[in-house]
Amino acid sequence: MERFRIVFSGSGGQGVITAAIILAEAAVLFDNLTAVQTQAYGAAARGGSTRSDVIISDTTIDFPKVNQPNILVCLTQEAYNRFYPIIRPGGLLITDQRYVRTERKVDAIQREIPLYKNVMEKIGKPIVHNICTLGAVIGMTGLVRPESIMKVLEKRIPTSFLEMNRTALDLGLELSKAFKK
Amino acid sequence: MERFRIVFSGSGGQGVITAAIILAEAAVLFDNLTAVQTQAYGAAARGGSTRSDVIISDTTIDFPKVNQPNILVCLTQEAYNRFYPIIRPGGLLITDQRYVRTERKVDAIQREIPLYKNVMEKIGKPIVHNICTLGAVIGMTGLVRPESIMKVLEKRIPTSFLEMNRTALDLGLELSKAFKK
Repeated sequence: MERFRIVFSGSGGQGVITAAIILAEAAVLFDNLTAVQTQAYGAAARGGSTRSDVIISDTTIDFPKVNQPNILVCLTQEAYNRFYPIIRPGGLLITDQRYVRTERKVDAIQREIPLYKNVMEKIGKPIVHNICTLGAVIGMTGLVRPESIMKVLEKRIPTSFLEMNRTALDLGLELSKAFKK
Repeated sequence: MERFRIVFSGSGGQGVITAAIILAEAAVLFDNLTAVQTQAYGAAARGGSTRSDVIISDTTIDFPKVNQPNILVCLTQEAYNRFYPIIRPGGLLITDQRYVRTERKVDAIQREIPLYKNVMEKIGKPIVHNICTLGAVIGMTGLVRPESIMKVLEKRIPTSFLEMNRTALDLGLELSKAFKK
């Protein structure tokens, strides 16, 4: 497989680190891949931006840092402003329509998706925004199977929250259909 | 400051990834340091071992992978068996007495601490085992201030759980006193 370098970015409360960890675990535990997941904290963290990197591959990964992601997810304007220049040419840039106004052209496929809007309208709980985002990412890229994400969630969260997370994941998958690469 | 390379290891449900993330966030957000936090998933993850790496420094960190930790925490026998050979000579090896029997001599300070036992006796909730462990780690090393850990927890968990986490952190700090480097 192609090696996927993904950066999830947003603000502290949006669950981007959790999304990255869930994706990495799904890839390794249930899709037989190799993954490395990193948070580099620094000035960005103090400024309120959170960034979480995942590399997914079917071979050994020696260098865990993502310099140029081929998939960049930005859930806030600040994260977008900070990270859009690093996207790999020909990559995929996913932003949330509610939070990000994309102003520059990048040499990448650019997808503005109403993730937050749909989560609030159809589920009403901002806490699953990250899972919906994950659904859109895997829907557009085929990185891991939705079932693998659900198996990770089953290990991580109480049964009573599973249904809501499943709905959020499906919502992201559904929203991604309009934008399939 | 010396550059600290820490590896937390254990099994899936023990919260070692969370402990690593909390430590990294505390260092960056409240102690003005730089941190990188990584999970490398692979065969170990499928076998049930979880490993989470943190590097803490007061300067830029270029290479985020920990090859030889100077602080290695092992919360299961399997994690100990797998990772004890990588400890940096002169480092600090912390194991939980309940889960790990240390059989080999390593060129490091070796501390077997009854973390789990004390958590169960004094708090009764295994979920804060990782926070107690974190208390012991910072108590022995002075890596970050306990207040910084609490500030991260205040951002992450519901108010109703804060008290229990504070107790677990204090318990770890207390237990570490007997073993201060």
